[in-house]
Amino acid sequence: MQSGNGASAPLNPGLVFEMVQAQQKTAALKAAIDLDIFRAVGEGPGDVPSIARHCAASERGTRILCDFLVINGVLEKEGNCYKHTPTSAAFLDPRSPACMASVAQFLSNPALRGPLDNLADVVRTGRTSLPGDGTVEPENPVWVDFAEQMAPMMGPMAGPLGLVVLEGQTGPMRVLDIAAGHGLFGIEIAKQNPEAHVTGLDWAPVLRVALKNAEKAGVQARYNMLPGSAFDVEFGGPYDAVLLTNFLHHFDKPTCVGLMKKVRAATRPGGRVATLEFVPNEDRVSPPMPAAFSMTMLTTTPSGDAYTFNELKAMYDEAGFSGVSAHPIPMSPHTIVMGNA
Amino acid sequence: MQSGNGASAPLNPGLVFEMVQAQQKTAALKAAIDLDIFRAVGEGPGDVPSIARHCAASERGTRILCDFLVINGVLEKEGNCYKHTPTSAAFLDPRSPACMASVAQFLSNPALRGPLDNLADVVRTGRTSLPGDGTVEPENPVWVDFAEQMAPMMGPMAGPLGLVVLEGQTGPMRVLDIAAGHGLFGIEIAKQNPEAHVTGLDWAPVLRVALKNAEKAGVQARYNMLPGSAFDVEFGGPYDAVLLTNFLHHFDKPTCVGLMKKVRAATRPGGRVATLEFVPNEDRVSPPMPAAFSMTMLTTTPSGDAYTFNELKAMYDEAGFSGVSAHPIPMSPHTIVMGNA
Repeated sequence: MQSGNGASAPLNPGLVFEMVQAQQKTAALKAAIDLDIFRAVGEGPGDVPSIARHCAASERGTRILCDFLVINGVLEKEGNCYKHTPTSAAFLDPRSPACMASVAQFLSNPALRGPLDNLADVVRTGRTSLPGDGTVEPENPVWVDFAEQMAPMMGPMAGPLGLVVLEGQTGPMRVLDIAAGHGLFGIEIAKQNPEAHVTGLDWAPVLRVALKNAEKAGVQARYNMLPGSAFDVEFGGPYDAVLLTNFLHHFDKPTCVGLMKKVRAATRPGGRVATLEFVPNEDRVSPPMPAAFSMTMLTTTPSGDAYTFNELKAMYDEAGFSGVSAHPIPMSPHTIVMGNA
Repeated sequence: MQSGNGASAPLNPGLVFEMVQAQQKTAALKAAIDLDIFRAVGEGPGDVPSIARHCAASERGTRILCDFLVINGVLEKEGNCYKHTPTSAAFLDPRSPACMASVAQFLSNPALRGPLDNLADVVRTGRTSLPGDGTVEPENPVWVDFAEQMAPMMGPMAGPLGLVVLEGQTGPMRVLDIAAGHGLFGIEIAKQNPEAHVTGLDWAPVLRVALKNAEKAGVQARYNMLPGSAFDVEFGGPYDAVLLTNFLHHFDKPTCVGLMKKVRAATRPGGRVATLEFVPNEDRVSPPMPAAFSMTMLTTTPSGDAYTFNELKAMYDEAGFSGVSAHPIPMSPHTIVMGNA
């Protein structure tokens, strides 16, 4: 079995050059967001002097940055004027409700960048070079940033996740949202089922972000908070459904199985557990986005990974769940994996 | 006129995500080179434990890094074993004569990375945030690194450049190689024409690298050195041909024209000048590699740029050259631009 982009590709020195220079792309997107370039382009007229004036930037810098964004498909150019591509209009113009600028800010967070500056050492030791246990260090404030900044990326997945979890189920139900973060997944269940009561579990400062989102959605009366570590606090229950989104990838398999057993014990017979994960194919090198996510887990955690479906299914099975099924979310790198208690 | 990858592209949030995460690619390639991954894969057998042992690295880190390299087309995977792609075998395995690992080291040089860490400020001011005038600061030691590390990228272009410059011309000739660096371009002329005498001009420590290469090529008896700044030293002459490779892009147009006039005065009537440059199309956003090079000039120089053919031709014309012509080098992002004195 051959896998990967390069398997049958011709000799291409440009591939090496492109990879070496790739760090320019991250820097350019971050700079464009910091400078408010995408709003300036959206408001028009889009010539260099106008954009430079809006952004209080030099014309040389503005022209070169905007050309670079065109080369990378997040602006387009007509004559000497820059315009949005469909992608930049939807996801980078701050006037768009789907704007993901804060996502870019989170993912290029200098606090998470350190390990990339000496990735060879990280590969040698096999674990994050961040202080302590990296992003899974208790009470790491990075999760408040995550809750606040990653919501635009996670929001669009809440609807599909709610549909898969509820499967048309109505009537009173209790839902536990582990590592709730922004809270959007549990909140979506509460929106789709007006008799659902949701308990969000996360560090206390993170839950304050979730509660604000619950208030915005008008479901705060049915939103309870359980502050602390998923490994330490009593879950209560039994629950009809448990959400475990973007969480398992931070830990090694035995830790995941241990947690899944605790989840199983808090789920009523016939209840369901739903994880949301980056799930690469069994070859671990496709599709590109879910597969590449393991690099983020290498640099930021002691032992996390992007688990394949077979690996996740084995964890579910060992913890006593059955009927494990995968539900890829269209237009996203995420997959919902469901299991029945 | 519409240009750029994104002009008619569909809505694609993955494009934003990919750009934010692009810095992982640069870090991964650099780490793989530092760890000697590409030699380990080339020598086989290519399973994770063997590679990890060769590289004195953890198995978790090795597996995740190698998978990441497969995703990016610079390794391939068969079952659980990693193998070279044609590109990684030729350009990344240190056992290959065409290995470009040192090029990757130069381009990811931490000394040149600084401006990317706050690119917004660079765009605001419109110039490098490196000390002084950045890479064009007199006697900047970065040019010794360039001469030593970039030769594998420039070497393959020397042959085609020699053919274009000589155009079959034999017999005694004098050649000036301005900003000689590794010296490979002038040396190639001396190899193609055994009666050519070449003068290399660059900072003295850089010329020591060029001289070593001239000795390796056996042409040192016809290789003279002119140490100093191209803007300050007397060129001597008259020369039959002047090479001006990878140099003009560091400066603004008036500075380039001034230098070209000085070159013109040192060239015999009928003599020729050849530049080697990243030459984007007039839209400045294609092809991707030459067009994106302007970002490197923004971050590392006060006023350099990737000039289009029309801009270069205007400089040549103003300096008194005629018959200006472009000669793209196949399989490379570079173009030779020729002019007649």
